[in-house]
Amino acid sequence: MSSRKNKNLNPWKTKGQKIVYQNPWIKVREDKVIRPDGKDGIYGVVQIADGVGIVALDDKHNVLLIGEWRYPISKYLWSIICGTCEPKEKPIQAAKKELIEEANMKAKKWSHLITFHPSPGTLDETAHIFLARDLTKTQGKQEGTTKIKVRKIPFTKALKMVEKGEITDSYAVVGLLKTKDKLKNG
Amino acid sequence: MSSRKNKNLNPWKTKGQKIVYQNPWIKVREDKVIRPDGKDGIYGVVQIADGVGIVALDDKHNVLLIGEWRYPISKYLWSIICGTCEPKEKPIQAAKKELIEEANMKAKKWSHLITFHPSPGTLDETAHIFLARDLTKTQGKQEGTTKIKVRKIPFTKALKMVEKGEITDSYAVVGLLKTKDKLKNG
Repeated sequence: MSSRKNKNLNPWKTKGQKIVYQNPWIKVREDKVIRPDGKDGIYGVVQIADGVGIVALDDKHNVLLIGEWRYPISKYLWSIICGTCEPKEKPIQAAKKELIEEANMKAKKWSHLITFHPSPGTLDETAHIFLARDLTKTQGKQEGTTKIKVRKIPFTKALKMVEKGEITDSYAVVGLLKTKDKLKNG
Repeated sequence: MSSRKNKNLNPWKTKGQKIVYQNPWIKVREDKVIRPDGKDGIYGVVQIADGVGIVALDDKHNVLLIGEWRYPISKYLWSIICGTCEPKEKPIQAAKKELIEEANMKAKKWSHLITFHPSPGTLDETAHIFLARDLTKTQGKQEGTTKIKVRKIPFTKALKMVEKGEITDSYAVVGLLKTKDKLKNG
C-alpha cells in the first residue's frame, strides 16, 4: 500500500501535541484530536524504543530462554532473549548485541522471522523477531537494571510452555510459534 | 508456582508510587524503586485495561478481520476482532460483547486459545484470545472513537497475511497462529 493511500485511511485529525510525562525509557504524548466521529477529543500515546527478540537455537534443537521479573505485571516470566533498539540502530544489530549481552553467545546464521506491533492502540512499539542459529560462546555483560537468568531447554519443551500458558511474553509466544512454522516448512 | 515463591523472585523494591498522568484510557504510574543491582531508581508503568481478541471462524473456514487506523503507530492495520475488558468484567463476557458490537455476530461455540502479555516491560496489559465458532448474525453498534471496517476472508489467506507481514497486531498474530495449531491438532 502506498504511503499516500495509507494516509488517506486516517480518520483522525491531530490539532496539537504535548509531552505530558517522560523518563529515560518512555515518553507519554497527549494529542488534541478530532475523532473519527467528528468530535473533539484527546489521544494518549506512549512512545518507547522498538524491541528485538531472538529465538536462539543450538544444533541440538535447544532454545535459550531468559527468566526475568517483569515489574509492570508483577510476575516472573520466561521469554526469548529480548532487548531494545538504540535510536537509528538497525534491529539486526540490536539483536546481535543482545544475544552477546544477555546470553554470552554469538550466532553465525541469522534470519528475520516476523515484525509485529505488541499493543498498537497505546504504544508506538514495533517488535522485530529473529532466528539465530550456529551458536558459539563469547563474553557478555548484563545491565544493572535487570537480573536475568538464562537457561537452555529443548525447543519442543518451550512450545509446550507456550501451550500450557507458562510462556506469555508476546515476543516469546510469537517468536516460538513462528519458528515452529519455519522449521516445519524447511 | 505459588504466589509466595513468585514474590520471592522479585529483585525490585518499591519505595513509593504516584500517578503522573491519566486520561480515560491510560494511567501512568511512576514508582520509586531500589533496582536489582541495589541502586535507587524509578520505574514508569503504564496501566491500561486488559484486552480480548476473538478469532471468529465461520463454517466455511472464513475468519472475520477488522481494519482500523492505529493512531499511535500511524498505520492502518488489519486484525482480529479486539476490545477491552471493563473493570471486573470476565474476558469471555467482554469477548462476546465485542463480537456483537464490532461485527454484529454471535457465536455458539467459544474456546480459550491463549492468554499473553503484549509488552510486559512497560504495560500491565493482559490479552485473552478466544476462538469463536458457529456464528450467527445479530445487531451491534460501533463506538464513536473508532471507525472500523469488517471483512471476511479465508482463514488460510489470513495466515498468508501474517506470513507476508500484512497482519502485525500482536492479538491477530498470536490468535491466528494459535488457531492454526488448534485446528491441526483437532
